[in-house]
Amino acid sequence: MAWQFIFKKRVEFCETDMAGIVHFSNFFRYMEMAEHAFIRSLGYSVHTEIDGCRYGWPRVRAECDYRQPIRFEDEIEVELLVAEKKAKAIEYRFHIYKAGGDARILAGVGTIVSVCVAMQDDGAMKSAAIPAVLADQIETAPAAALSAG
Amino acid sequence: MAWQFIFKKRVEFCETDMAGIVHFSNFFRYMEMAEHAFIRSLGYSVHTEIDGCRYGWPRVRAECDYRQPIRFEDEIEVELLVAEKKAKAIEYRFHIYKAGGDARILAGVGTIVSVCVAMQDDGAMKSAAIPAVLADQIETAPAAALSAG
Amino acid sequence: MAWQFIFKKRVEFCETDMAGIVHFSNFFRYMEMAEHAFIRSLGYSVHTEIDGCRYGWPRVRAECDYRQPIRFEDEIEVELLVAEKKAKAIEYRFHIYKAGGDARILAGVGTIVSVCVAMQDDGAMKSAAIPAVLADQIETAPAAALSAG
Amino acid sequence: MAWQFIFKKRVEFCETDMAGIVHFSNFFRYMEMAEHAFIRSLGYSVHTEIDGCRYGWPRVRAECDYRQPIRFEDEIEVELLVAEKKAKAIEYRFHIYKAGGDARILAGVGTIVSVCVAMQDDGAMKSAAIPAVLADQIETAPAAALSAG
Repeated sequence: MAWQFIFKKRVEFCETDMAGIVHFSNFFRYMEMAEHAFIRSLGYSVHTEIDGCRYGWPRVRAECDYRQPIRFEDEIEVELLVAEKKAKAIEYRFHIYKAGGDARILAGVGTIVSVCVAMQDDGAMKSAAIPAVLADQIETAPAAALSAG
Repeated sequence: MAWQFIFKKRVEFCETDMAGIVHFSNFFRYMEMAEHAFIRSLGYSVHTEIDGCRYGWPRVRAECDYRQPIRFEDEIEVELLVAEKKAKAIEYRFHIYKAGGDARILAGVGTIVSVCVAMQDDGAMKSAAIPAVLADQIETAPAAALSAG
Repeated sequence: MAWQFIFKKRVEFCETDMAGIVHFSNFFRYMEMAEHAFIRSLGYSVHTEIDGCRYGWPRVRAECDYRQPIRFEDEIEVELLVAEKKAKAIEYRFHIYKAGGDARILAGVGTIVSVCVAMQDDGAMKSAAIPAVLADQIETAPAAALSAG
Repeated sequence: MAWQFIFKKRVEFCETDMAGIVHFSNFFRYMEMAEHAFIRSLGYSVHTEIDGCRYGWPRVRAECDYRQPIRFEDEIEVELLVAEKKAKAIEYRFHIYKAGGDARILAGVGTIVSVCVAMQDDGAMKSAAIPAVLADQIETAPAAALSAG
């Protein structure tokens, strides 16, 4: 049962802005990259077909507290935690670190709430239970793990 | 004294994703566009020099609740409200609508907290009081205005 | 018959990079915005259904010569010209100007070749003749118009 | 002496558009990621200070031929080749492949011409010779290597 995942990447030039730091909107893209890599680590994709049904995971909420700026070529670690697993949605917590071993620096703390939907033929999305093949692999993280260290 | 601003734009193709809707991270870019247009409407820029000091407005918090998807070529209206004006920071509330006159649809509700900083020569940012030329033009919105209609 | 279109926009903060200028990849997004606004001006959308067929316009070629940097809050004008209209493709030429009336500055010259495709049910794209309702409205620009002034 | 570099990445969801494929402008970002990784592999950064001079590498030209669409979660390989090393500029050729060992598929062929500039205190950029510490490590690729296989 999985409730944690670490996603690593290096900050690219096109992710910075004229203030010389990563644009604040890209913290949300980093969180999403971690979420998608987490689902991949379980053998699935966020956009996948299971038993003839095409699933998607639109967001109903996203938030981020910014602690430290991140800059070009910084190596970052995005720690994903399953803050709450529900029948039709998952709330993720994210800790975004500038890498550096024990000396890593907390740059941001975020939350994304993704709901599971079945894509209809007309492009509409209908709320759906998380497919068992995924739900059976995911569990809510222990409370102690949810605070950043 | 200003506490409200309306920013309008049309959704561009490059702002959509393979789910056929505007990528959730772009709601934050839309809010920022409204914030910057608001500051411009007061005669200034978010990146400006006043009395020899170069100011910037990094964010310490951003959040969004997603209500309805937005799609390519939709015309949107981003209503900015000053939720709270402090000495060194402004909390903005945003209502993102799909345009349509009285029939406009609320697609998202967001918050951004921007802090005023003085850019140092070494690239560092130091918290600073909002310059009077701006602060004198901005006030907190009446509570009734902060809820989306 | 149309062979020219002017698209105007203001440079947004999120389009800049840490060098303090618009990221070079965004020139291509500006060209695309002009292309899409051109098609809209003819009463259609690049992603549209005509007579039961869903059309798309993937690119087979894109290029840009960069003449001058563009910066945050610059007002730009993207002049689109139809460099060549073929049966199943259109080659567009773009002149990207920093606005300023007679004193406008040429910041970039670009080309995009878009091919008309019919989207298949399995997501594949099949080359297709430009629908007559569009083709009948578009013509190749006079050669003299294709050079930037 | 280096004239080739391979950069690998996985396509992220936010890089796709509503046509279900990687947005064409992102091919340029992939090329840039490869260019920057190449410079890093030589021990430097594209935005670096050498002997008190701050260098940058703005582009004067970029082009891409699109051969095959790339999709979400595809693993790609960007092969960078030094097409021509000049005193103050480098022309790079890029082959963008969908990974797959011997069965890799050529998705795009691109060119970027980057010029070396010394950043002035007022933000202006002045053409400059490539610093010797970099120039001494880079050479033009053999002609045979420049065609995609």
